[in-house]
Amino acid sequence: MELHNLVEKVSKKFFITERDIRRILSALMTSDDIWEVIDLADVPVMALCEVWKALEEKGLVEVSDKRVSLTAKGLELARSYKISPIRSFTCKLCEGRGITLAGLEKVEKRFKEIAKNRPEAIQDYDQGYILEDVTLLRVALMWQKGDLQGRELLVLGDDDLVSIAAGLTGVAARVTVLDIDDRLLEFIQDVSEQEKLGIEVIKHDLRYPLPENLQRAFDTFITDPTESLRGLKAFLGRSLSALKGPGSAGYFGLTRREASLQKWQAIQRFLLERGAVITDILDDFNAYVNWPYIETMCSWEFLPVKTIPKRVWYRSAQYRLELLGEPGPDTEIYSGDIFFDEETATA
Amino acid sequence: MELHNLVEKVSKKFFITERDIRRILSALMTSDDIWEVIDLADVPVMALCEVWKALEEKGLVEVSDKRVSLTAKGLELARSYKISPIRSFTCKLCEGRGITLAGLEKVEKRFKEIAKNRPEAIQDYDQGYILEDVTLLRVALMWQKGDLQGRELLVLGDDDLVSIAAGLTGVAARVTVLDIDDRLLEFIQDVSEQEKLGIEVIKHDLRYPLPENLQRAFDTFITDPTESLRGLKAFLGRSLSALKGPGSAGYFGLTRREASLQKWQAIQRFLLERGAVITDILDDFNAYVNWPYIETMCSWEFLPVKTIPKRVWYRSAQYRLELLGEPGPDTEIYSGDIFFDEETATA
Repeated sequence: MELHNLVEKVSKKFFITERDIRRILSALMTSDDIWEVIDLADVPVMALCEVWKALEEKGLVEVSDKRVSLTAKGLELARSYKISPIRSFTCKLCEGRGITLAGLEKVEKRFKEIAKNRPEAIQDYDQGYILEDVTLLRVALMWQKGDLQGRELLVLGDDDLVSIAAGLTGVAARVTVLDIDDRLLEFIQDVSEQEKLGIEVIKHDLRYPLPENLQRAFDTFITDPTESLRGLKAFLGRSLSALKGPGSAGYFGLTRREASLQKWQAIQRFLLERGAVITDILDDFNAYVNWPYIETMCSWEFLPVKTIPKRVWYRSAQYRLELLGEPGPDTEIYSGDIFFDEETATA
Repeated sequence: MELHNLVEKVSKKFFITERDIRRILSALMTSDDIWEVIDLADVPVMALCEVWKALEEKGLVEVSDKRVSLTAKGLELARSYKISPIRSFTCKLCEGRGITLAGLEKVEKRFKEIAKNRPEAIQDYDQGYILEDVTLLRVALMWQKGDLQGRELLVLGDDDLVSIAAGLTGVAARVTVLDIDDRLLEFIQDVSEQEKLGIEVIKHDLRYPLPENLQRAFDTFITDPTESLRGLKAFLGRSLSALKGPGSAGYFGLTRREASLQKWQAIQRFLLERGAVITDILDDFNAYVNWPYIETMCSWEFLPVKTIPKRVWYRSAQYRLELLGEPGPDTEIYSGDIFFDEETATA
């Protein structure tokens, strides 16, 4: 049994490297919880399920009492490749994000009170929001980088409630939110009025170009795109078109759970072509609250063990970019479903 | 006085955006030490000196008792643009790097004893090494990502002594070092023999392609390139050519002190063209020990205040990449000086 045979087998359906298989085996030596394995493996869920199938056919993995593990034969294979459990050096204080909320306690307290009444995530718009702390940390990151204070901020899709956290700091010159979901728009509007945050709330479907008055109008955008390649391009193309020009900044999340590194590469190319440069990629910065529709998401039927996750397993990297040139026109209309491609797992 | 006029003036010599000027003004509101301002401003030193000149001509900045500051007029301008001091949320435990050395104490202790006798940085090869903790953190990062244990590692240029720290962990399958500096090669060779680390030490000038037997031979590379565009391409091109193929990983430092974001963009394009994808960009991960030749470095004469830095001011982002395709042949020979271009400051 050689790892490259597994690569060849799985590659017929998904982009995968020998390194990915190593990482999956390493994850299986680290945890027996399927969701932790998915979290640690850093390959798309759908690809991991396909690898699992191939490993199972060869008798290398097994499920027992809803726990996943390598068989004796699987362990032997892993060891023959010098694969070992994942060794973590993640900072205990900031959990690897590099920043903390020290100094933001008042905003934190108010934000968490407000968020208690937020609308629940729904599948219709591929929603799934991040931990409240992470929403606040995104705002802290923008502030530290000089992209919040005195700056005009556009939030494209806001089930994470970034606009409210940003508004509560009181330092942004303007906060505008676009979303397609009336529940969210109403919630943000109500909070903004009660708290006097002055957030502009606009209904918009990102499959269509931004209204003229929002193009080239902002210093900073933040968004958490849907993960299909078409969806990513739609969200990021609109976002870039909202920026004033050179020196404007953008923030977005990109996951490994539903996007292969091949997709990452396509997105990086797309950003460079549109005149941006990537300044930061912070792995696992974003951690998501488990959403209520997990059993109806498209990858559920392929999972080797059907259990509800008890802890955070869905994470994404936080990207930051700066624009060096003009983003150019953004006129494409994306018809139909932009949430789904062969790597997506939660749509 | 408008910021865009300053941009136009400075742009004749350096790539700069209004955002960069804002950041410089913000840095000048945060510290009166020229080296801290350089550290915080995140623009090339040479560009900052040019901005300083333009600000000085307009009476917006001044030097007094070797301290830099905005004049009353400068402060007024900054405030009219809603510019304020830089707000930091950097984690106090990991200093923003996301990882710590917890669990690596034995390696840390031995490495620091060994490093006491290291060769000093010299200008001939544009040397300047990182803090000992950061060398160890680079190794921890590679370990965590699965790029050290059981893997074959190539270090291209090693005044940072990464090979020794990696060797001391005892988990790498192979550690090979290339350098041009006989002092370093001898030092690493001697340590390797004393400590039984089994490091391979090879003399090589990176202006020339790698020897055949080192091409397509490694799982992981790590390097800290010289900062000219030609130098970056030479170091990274050689590094990529050493990798086995898809799934192999690479680590390198890229600074803002001697590289504009335009140069960053060119390097990102170069990496994507060579079949790589960028997986991590960790800002200010690398912190450098002040080198002894600071007063003869090429930017010295342009500095508004000639003082020797007392603290760390030179930092770089840590990049990580993975190879998705084949890097292709790397046959170019780089003649002459590869250390210098118009943005470099330390050559």
